[in-house]
Amino acid sequence: MRIDAARLQQNLEELSVFGRPAGGTFSDGVSRVAYSDADVAGRTFVMDLMRSAGLEPRIDAAGNIFSRYAGSDSSLKPILLGSHIDSVPSGGNFDGDLGSLAAIEVVRSLKDRGVTTRHPLEIVIWSNEESGTVGSRTTLGDIKPEDLDRLYYGIRLADGLRRIGGDPTRLEDSRITPSSFHCYLELHIEQGGNLEKAGVPVGVVEGIVSIDEYEVEIRGFANHAGTTPMPQRRNALLAAARLIEAVQEVVTREPGRQVGTVGRLEVSPNARNVVPGSVKHSVELRDLSSEKIARLGAAIQERAQAIAGETGTDISMKHIEHDEAAIATPEVQSAIEAAAAGLGFRTMRLPSGAGHDAQVMAKVGPMGMIFVPSVGGISHSPQELTRWEDCANGANMLLETTLRVDRLQFT
Amino acid sequence: MRIDAARLQQNLEELSVFGRPAGGTFSDGVSRVAYSDADVAGRTFVMDLMRSAGLEPRIDAAGNIFSRYAGSDSSLKPILLGSHIDSVPSGGNFDGDLGSLAAIEVVRSLKDRGVTTRHPLEIVIWSNEESGTVGSRTTLGDIKPEDLDRLYYGIRLADGLRRIGGDPTRLEDSRITPSSFHCYLELHIEQGGNLEKAGVPVGVVEGIVSIDEYEVEIRGFANHAGTTPMPQRRNALLAAARLIEAVQEVVTREPGRQVGTVGRLEVSPNARNVVPGSVKHSVELRDLSSEKIARLGAAIQERAQAIAGETGTDISMKHIEHDEAAIATPEVQSAIEAAAAGLGFRTMRLPSGAGHDAQVMAKVGPMGMIFVPSVGGISHSPQELTRWEDCANGANMLLETTLRVDRLQFT
Repeated sequence: MRIDAARLQQNLEELSVFGRPAGGTFSDGVSRVAYSDADVAGRTFVMDLMRSAGLEPRIDAAGNIFSRYAGSDSSLKPILLGSHIDSVPSGGNFDGDLGSLAAIEVVRSLKDRGVTTRHPLEIVIWSNEESGTVGSRTTLGDIKPEDLDRLYYGIRLADGLRRIGGDPTRLEDSRITPSSFHCYLELHIEQGGNLEKAGVPVGVVEGIVSIDEYEVEIRGFANHAGTTPMPQRRNALLAAARLIEAVQEVVTREPGRQVGTVGRLEVSPNARNVVPGSVKHSVELRDLSSEKIARLGAAIQERAQAIAGETGTDISMKHIEHDEAAIATPEVQSAIEAAAAGLGFRTMRLPSGAGHDAQVMAKVGPMGMIFVPSVGGISHSPQELTRWEDCANGANMLLETTLRVDRLQFT
Repeated sequence: MRIDAARLQQNLEELSVFGRPAGGTFSDGVSRVAYSDADVAGRTFVMDLMRSAGLEPRIDAAGNIFSRYAGSDSSLKPILLGSHIDSVPSGGNFDGDLGSLAAIEVVRSLKDRGVTTRHPLEIVIWSNEESGTVGSRTTLGDIKPEDLDRLYYGIRLADGLRRIGGDPTRLEDSRITPSSFHCYLELHIEQGGNLEKAGVPVGVVEGIVSIDEYEVEIRGFANHAGTTPMPQRRNALLAAARLIEAVQEVVTREPGRQVGTVGRLEVSPNARNVVPGSVKHSVELRDLSSEKIARLGAAIQERAQAIAGETGTDISMKHIEHDEAAIATPEVQSAIEAAAAGLGFRTMRLPSGAGHDAQVMAKVGPMGMIFVPSVGGISHSPQELTRWEDCANGANMLLETTLRVDRLQFT
């Protein structure tokens, strides 16, 4: 049994219209940020697709869309299949969309052939994934009434939830617990270049990496760039430059897949003729091992203090956030590999450097994730691209994995 | 003969009120940006001071204030003594103010004692120095009718000129030529820490440095900070960090007073979780020798291309501006040294790393500049401070130098 690859492609193309830049084409990407008109329209399209498949969509208080296909044993918990359809501003047409429409395609393919799994299958389209898995985290109670005033893309969360059919007054009703599902499965584009580079069509996700976020503040002294001799400068940007190089050096000097990034940096007063007086910048470290990134963070801290001494600046490096790694359930990883073997696909185990709703679900129950290649490893960009053949392969993998997970019993 | 140090101090304190932060004191500095209400009030105060000294102020089309004290030989050209009273936002009470009020004090001291020089003495308070010597450059024809729409601190130049009594329709009338003056003299705070560090009360300015401005644009590739492996990154901020270090290294590896600064830097997209895709930043090089900074610029260019190769980025470094050095007239430098010897002050020759109206006047005729120490080398800051004793020393130096320059004949 195979999914309908042409239908999956057509659905992805049709969804891409909602949030497409005016006058653009599919390859111009999409801006379908959560709670926007484009998001509302995209969600309506997806719910209509569910109805075409004979499924009845419902929206929980957190704005997540669910629809259930009954299993043969009504005493069993459902297998959740899902992803999201919101995008970053100027994003692509595969991140989230592929996993969402593949989940619908899998259920439709089974249903059209009259195949029934033992467990019920429940499609889920999570709301507002791109702002930090807001919809899925709400179901764990991570989003609280006091968070309802937060702005996402300029819209208050409470107002955003109302716009997409959620109910900000009843967030508790969306709660998901270990008894709510048998296993959560998500198909997603890799968002890195590893699979494409290796020529491997299927990635078996080992887990979603742990993240440490630091905020660095460097205080030097702003002074006239013409009159302040070089040895008397306390140049905050020179200190920042050395720290950026130190992050690179500390992160790359040992083997492994850890990454470290200084992505945001602001200079003050930021004038061409003033020696920079202060700089603030981020440092982000990611790896499957929390221990490893803690150790790298400590090494960077040490380098920061040495650089402060060399440059006559004060450097504070505050640890502001830690996200735990989410390890994919080993039996599910094996099920994905077995499904690939059955379909004749080579596989590669790899971590996910990006956060996903699967990471949230892993806190509650068994979880597995399937990756398909991204051309050039590009994502969060209109240039994001996964070949149609890889999309179809991923959906078939999701189907086969679902059938195997249906037979698994987790201990 | 000496100037009245107490009166000079009192006048500086009284001028400091115009533009002082609400509820502040003298040490809270001043915001007397050109064309503001504070600027207009400060100019009225200065013109009243001129009148108290028995001088008649007049305003040229460019908003510069002049007042003349006749000399004994009416066939001779005037000696110009001046500076400016506009400040940067959140500036100090000495940059410009000292030279302006000292010029008035010098003329008043001479007049009170009935001393007449051979050349007429002409006090000049230049308008809008802090936006790039706008008032003095207008007198050379550098500011043209098409520049009248430019905004300075949110005010159109034409409107600003009208607010301070200038006439935007007759800029040509303000023209200064080689026949307009015998010599231009300016007293100014050093704005660097060299005199204070050396314990020398008087600086003899050798000239105002040449400046080369470059605009650097680094194009890498913005990608997900979690999913892009370190070796595959084309990180524009890492390239910028290396170039900032290269500027420091190239500028400091040879002896001399040259300075090099990366003062402005902007990252795109500037998000903690995105590998920086592009960076724009300034590079500014200053030295008395244009040849030297051209050579340093070429060395930095070469390093930029090597860094582009290492980091997988494209780096363009465009030369966007060159300001010629303005060498102080050697005879005037000697006259300043002779005046200092007569007053018992040690001196030190040094370049001015900052731009001044004296640099503009040097294009037309003989020029000399006297520096007095800045505490900590701080300027363009409320913390800018020159001790009262140094202010008085500087004004006495301006007086003695004027008397010596009065006897000079330039060839």
